[in-house]
Amino acid sequence: MTELSTETGARRSRREGGRRRDGEARVANAIPQLPRRRSVRRFPPMEILSGDEVEAIHQASLKVLEEIGMDFTLAEARDLLKQAGARIEGERVRFDRHMVEEFICSAPPHFTFHARNPQNTVEIGGDEMVFGTVGSPPNSSDMDNGRRSGNLADFHNFLKLAQYFNCIGFISGYAVEPIDVHASIRHLVALRDTAILTDKPFHAYSLGKERICDGIEIARIARGITADELEREPSLFTIVNTNSPLKLDAPMLRGIIEMSSRNQIVCVTPFTLAGAMAPVTVAGALVEQNAEALAGMVFTQVVRKGSPFIYGGFTSNVDMKSGAPAFGTPEYMKACIAGGQLARRYNVPYRTSNTCAANTVDAQAAYESVFSLWGVTMGGGNLIMHGAGWLEGGLVASFEKFVLDCDLIQMVMEFLTPLDVSADALGVDAIREVGPGGHFFGAAHTLARYEHAFYTPIISDWRNNQQWLAAGKPEAWQKANTVYKQALAEYKEPPIDPAIREELDAFVARRKQEGGAPTDF
Amino acid sequence: MTELSTETGARRSRREGGRRRDGEARVANAIPQLPRRRSVRRFPPMEILSGDEVEAIHQASLKVLEEIGMDFTLAEARDLLKQAGARIEGERVRFDRHMVEEFICSAPPHFTFHARNPQNTVEIGGDEMVFGTVGSPPNSSDMDNGRRSGNLADFHNFLKLAQYFNCIGFISGYAVEPIDVHASIRHLVALRDTAILTDKPFHAYSLGKERICDGIEIARIARGITADELEREPSLFTIVNTNSPLKLDAPMLRGIIEMSSRNQIVCVTPFTLAGAMAPVTVAGALVEQNAEALAGMVFTQVVRKGSPFIYGGFTSNVDMKSGAPAFGTPEYMKACIAGGQLARRYNVPYRTSNTCAANTVDAQAAYESVFSLWGVTMGGGNLIMHGAGWLEGGLVASFEKFVLDCDLIQMVMEFLTPLDVSADALGVDAIREVGPGGHFFGAAHTLARYEHAFYTPIISDWRNNQQWLAAGKPEAWQKANTVYKQALAEYKEPPIDPAIREELDAFVARRKQEGGAPTDF
Repeated sequence: MTELSTETGARRSRREGGRRRDGEARVANAIPQLPRRRSVRRFPPMEILSGDEVEAIHQASLKVLEEIGMDFTLAEARDLLKQAGARIEGERVRFDRHMVEEFICSAPPHFTFHARNPQNTVEIGGDEMVFGTVGSPPNSSDMDNGRRSGNLADFHNFLKLAQYFNCIGFISGYAVEPIDVHASIRHLVALRDTAILTDKPFHAYSLGKERICDGIEIARIARGITADELEREPSLFTIVNTNSPLKLDAPMLRGIIEMSSRNQIVCVTPFTLAGAMAPVTVAGALVEQNAEALAGMVFTQVVRKGSPFIYGGFTSNVDMKSGAPAFGTPEYMKACIAGGQLARRYNVPYRTSNTCAANTVDAQAAYESVFSLWGVTMGGGNLIMHGAGWLEGGLVASFEKFVLDCDLIQMVMEFLTPLDVSADALGVDAIREVGPGGHFFGAAHTLARYEHAFYTPIISDWRNNQQWLAAGKPEAWQKANTVYKQALAEYKEPPIDPAIREELDAFVARRKQEGGAPTDF
Repeated sequence: MTELSTETGARRSRREGGRRRDGEARVANAIPQLPRRRSVRRFPPMEILSGDEVEAIHQASLKVLEEIGMDFTLAEARDLLKQAGARIEGERVRFDRHMVEEFICSAPPHFTFHARNPQNTVEIGGDEMVFGTVGSPPNSSDMDNGRRSGNLADFHNFLKLAQYFNCIGFISGYAVEPIDVHASIRHLVALRDTAILTDKPFHAYSLGKERICDGIEIARIARGITADELEREPSLFTIVNTNSPLKLDAPMLRGIIEMSSRNQIVCVTPFTLAGAMAPVTVAGALVEQNAEALAGMVFTQVVRKGSPFIYGGFTSNVDMKSGAPAFGTPEYMKACIAGGQLARRYNVPYRTSNTCAANTVDAQAAYESVFSLWGVTMGGGNLIMHGAGWLEGGLVASFEKFVLDCDLIQMVMEFLTPLDVSADALGVDAIREVGPGGHFFGAAHTLARYEHAFYTPIISDWRNNQQWLAAGKPEAWQKANTVYKQALAEYKEPPIDPAIREELDAFVARRKQEGGAPTDF
């Protein structure tokens, strides 16, 4: 959000009680947004493991790294690790536990992630929670036109929604893969458009040297800073997924080398579905997750001591009948919360996700997502990937789910705000004024507060049955469908310095002319 | 659940991995239920108020009771309170803070709530969580026949579902009001049928002397015990709703007198919707809730020191645009969690609810319910009313929502089970066996565990998009619709001693002949 539109959002939010506070014209049917603000968890995160149990997982992961090791498929990475003390045998890298303990000390506990609009710069770590868009689905969908392959038009529309909704703190990657843009130049088009259509911090994929270096350059140009300044101010992040079990592929390792060496943000997220790529027990999957995340963390710190690292957790389970991935399950919640305990064991920020496995925006999509958010929030998640729009286990970016998730995220943000327990809020005088058998609708205490007393939802339909029937029995997804179109209609491109835009366009044009990036990865 | 059907449920649950463990024939499409078991919260409940803030609410409530007081509309109740030290002025009762502090010490921190089937007896308080059915909606609905006035046939079907689903621990009242039974004898019919069609512990309404005394007698007969034994073993509970703000009506007070004097369970639940019957601030609504709950608690202990009492919290907010009640909101979650802190301040069990305001079983119904369960679970709820079936802010008991909620409750129960972090579960040898780049589907560790490794949901559809499309794009409510009918078809009436059944029928027949209860309340 630009300064201007944030202010508009805040005004809207102040007006949502239904009456004008000042002389302004009322925005009819304004989408009730919270103002752009930080989300800070003010209670200790939940713990489902004892200290001894956290230590048991830690020790088991060290054993895995020491005895079994992990395959690193990039020679340059193996050379760096060898110099740092790892044992190399072919592609296999084994880590002495003392080496691991030494290298995991240097990653910072929290850091600033810079956006081209300073108002959208976010803090990562500690008690902060920042929610991003869905990232990487190959398909998109809305209720009007159904499920389709990802394309640039939908990609743009998701960027506009990401910019429009104040609760979205960052762009998680491509909300949907724009498959209609050739893979050699897709990253150039997508990242340029991300930097133009939004002014929030963003992500670049670690798919080989050219792509990640182009991403770093686009982030630098968009912020209008020098390479030195960029090194001081992390302005790009990348998710490095291990190829679980126990493998880190060359394009990803190249990403770590380019990003960490420039002090940009690397989040290593093992993809440990219990029963498939990881042991069938949640504890076993966590051991594998932890071993892989630690290996990634060590490598970032070998590349550059003190570079910003995020511990990624993505442990869930599969349906053992079909092998299908399951999300938002009790197992997912536990893995989320235990993962937070592990990340805090290493004193680094924690990445989790708002997930579901539903095929459509029905009750299942909602309950799996809220169970996910329960685990994410109570578990102390800092960077929340796939915050809005994720459907079908990540195979689909849904426009309706995006809006629904924004409502869920806003509710979590409101849940995080402390209760006002001032003498005034305790309201004894209001209770005295009304007395037994009365009501509070007209009390002075009520009249002074009613406009902003409670969260106003984006989606929830609280009309009574008669009104709801008369309105044609709308379901939540229908409201979400209306709202996403309204948001797109109201979207305003954030201002950008024309010189920066020109430099961005020139860079992208040149790199396109050079052929972009190889597609044989 | 009878012993027999519980065993069947457990067997089914063990079989849900898809393969036979023993020689039995497989039950095709068995509803995947958890076995009947206790739910114990093994982590400390969440706190959103500091100790000082809890104390501020406590002190404000004492001030309300001392200075403003509360109307008790039954002379006998006022007389009892006067003898105990309260100040009476007309119907108004004011409580000296020392009197309150004195009388709230004697209620037990936890107690046993007896069912006619000892296997269904539950513990109330401490870290135990017990989930009940929806209670008291005037309407019922299913997707086939829509919304209709409550009737005896639907009432019976909800009882059957309550009996069928292992996760349902008690009957919260009439899951739907059987309006087609005359009000004078409705309680006789409804409670007799509850005691016959289920063998779980149940509720009777405090609507004057006859009804509650009939309820107590039916509970006694159903258990086959004497009045003395009943006094030693609480076997019935009643919800006493205050007439907020600050009023306790005669039929409810009569209920407390009859129930507490016989050592049966009284739960006082103020109905404090912030902005309507309570101050527009959550803190103010909590002050009012707390004052009313404390007044009720004092009265139960005045009637009989040490009688079982449950602190009821039901604070939510209204939509200030329309006055419509809102549920499952951020405000509801906070009130749930703060309410738990207050109940623990007084060292008594805590009652909360699984609520929503949705008109249909869509995404809204699901997210409002899971947000409720989040507050309920993290807040340390012990007795969870309206656990399954609540829709439209309690105006409708929905068959599909009942099944959906059973799935949600089961997921909470699974979330509550501790992670197994034994050396075996950590699975280092499995990780060694599979190694980098492999998969765990065929690992020995997986094969030994896959049948029971993960929670099997009742509703969630994890099929891939092609399979889901081929199945006709079913939504969650459609699965719930199928399951509730299957559960009704599979329901088995629990065994009952013929002599007890005869005594029950004779009692009900006699009381019907006597005209039942007056209907001029």
